[in-house]
Amino acid sequence: MSITQTTIAAAHARIAGDIRRTPILRLEDGLCLKLEQLQRGGSFKARGAFNRLRQAGDLSAGVVAASGGNHGVAVALAARALGVQATIFVPEVSSPAKQARIAALGARLVVGGAGYADALAASQAHVAQTGALAVHAYDQPEILAGQGTVALEWQEQAPELTHVLVAVGGGGLIGGMAAWYAGSTTQVVAVEPQTSCALHTALAAGRPVDVPVSGLAADSLGARQVGGLMFPIAQTHVAQSVLVSDAAISEAQRWLWAECAVLAEPGGAAALAALRSGAFVPPPGARVGVLVCGSNTAPGSVA
Amino acid sequence: MSITQTTIAAAHARIAGDIRRTPILRLEDGLCLKLEQLQRGGSFKARGAFNRLRQAGDLSAGVVAASGGNHGVAVALAARALGVQATIFVPEVSSPAKQARIAALGARLVVGGAGYADALAASQAHVAQTGALAVHAYDQPEILAGQGTVALEWQEQAPELTHVLVAVGGGGLIGGMAAWYAGSTTQVVAVEPQTSCALHTALAAGRPVDVPVSGLAADSLGARQVGGLMFPIAQTHVAQSVLVSDAAISEAQRWLWAECAVLAEPGGAAALAALRSGAFVPPPGARVGVLVCGSNTAPGSVA
Repeated sequence: MSITQTTIAAAHARIAGDIRRTPILRLEDGLCLKLEQLQRGGSFKARGAFNRLRQAGDLSAGVVAASGGNHGVAVALAARALGVQATIFVPEVSSPAKQARIAALGARLVVGGAGYADALAASQAHVAQTGALAVHAYDQPEILAGQGTVALEWQEQAPELTHVLVAVGGGGLIGGMAAWYAGSTTQVVAVEPQTSCALHTALAAGRPVDVPVSGLAADSLGARQVGGLMFPIAQTHVAQSVLVSDAAISEAQRWLWAECAVLAEPGGAAALAALRSGAFVPPPGARVGVLVCGSNTAPGSVA
Repeated sequence: MSITQTTIAAAHARIAGDIRRTPILRLEDGLCLKLEQLQRGGSFKARGAFNRLRQAGDLSAGVVAASGGNHGVAVALAARALGVQATIFVPEVSSPAKQARIAALGARLVVGGAGYADALAASQAHVAQTGALAVHAYDQPEILAGQGTVALEWQEQAPELTHVLVAVGGGGLIGGMAAWYAGSTTQVVAVEPQTSCALHTALAAGRPVDVPVSGLAADSLGARQVGGLMFPIAQTHVAQSVLVSDAAISEAQRWLWAECAVLAEPGGAAALAALRSGAFVPPPGARVGVLVCGSNTAPGSVA
């Protein structure tokens, strides 16, 4: 079940016809943004979802996910593309706009439970009853390998980068990306909100532990615990773990719009916030890349 | 004063350190978007502005432009980058938001006159008094050559395109781009709002003529007459001229946001509107590119 350059390259070949090769944008000061918020479904989550569905055998019992956000959108999108039924369990707290988007993609929406854990439990019960394929938001090998294709592409597009900054929720994205970059000199820097820092806490504790979750980016980065698959990868291959405030996230969102015409959701702007706020200070000579990983927000909320 | 691949390539080399190489995004159905709304200043206008300023000799008397929109922003930006004073004449109708952006870039803002023609006249009087460098919005060789660098880049990025759709205001952009693509099999398609169609009318009349100007995209595409430099280029090298409704422009804006997380102003989405509304129907086997050329709008206005 290991996540390696080989499994990531295989994932990339598998989903090449499903996903967008998202572009990079080099700014005047040398900063390299990878615009993954332009991905199908508005976030990187489509990569893992397509990889999981394409690797599965029989999908006739449908697919199931628990997520009121980007992962739910991605699974609904991938299921529609493959012509199978998706059932998405969303907690009551998830935004009506994201629920509407999931439903518009043809997925069956089951709203219930106060938080993600309740929706996950309900989805697991549904899987046990129906034999549908469970698509976890961040803790399955196919998901990590799929998300890791971001790094494969980015290294082709910008091989010179010394540091790449990546926002972390449950850790599927950074787990896959760190596994890819493990074979290079590029350092992977983890960025989390101060109010939702499952990886930072786990690295300090030496194991995944539960953390409280709140703040501006909680709907996309608010995992209570990082995945078991990603944790050993992070211990070895994540060079640094930094935290950002909600104020820094908001500032990064506004700056992305004002200076780059890029609309990012709070979680999608969190990695940039680390650079702009000074939570991450590049060493002399560094060539820095920042991943913009999600766009699913109301445009008017940014300005 | 001719605009050729040679002058465009020279412009590209001249402004390479000033502008962004804007990325392309290939969609699932093969459509290729060039995301020029990610350019510095939020539109393609920075290319022409930097090219004009970099080619000028003595800029000590400052630079002058008439525009309440993207061109004003671009000239203010280029002047600041080169450390010279910009004076921007803006008509009273231009939006307070764009005026604020121009002022924030350090330009002197002179608000006066009901429309663009009044602002242009005032700017010309200022040039006569001060010896400042006039930077026209669309009818100077350096401007056309600068805007033409969009096509140079795009051909490198997507040489397979058979058709590129480009929105038209005064015609500086499509003039430069058509001059570049003149040496290829790629056809350049002009797209204008039904309510602001200076090129379509000129092509029918056989010469630039005044047209009425109104509608959703008037603030960026609302030129009363196309430029004298671009017109002979368009007569020879623009393959087709199509018109779109305001409703089609709005729909294209919403689609760009919903499906691509791209925020475009009305004029920036007009070229896509031609494809989505059926005003332009690609022939069998066509490989179509659409230029998204501007982002300067309130994000909340799109959703």
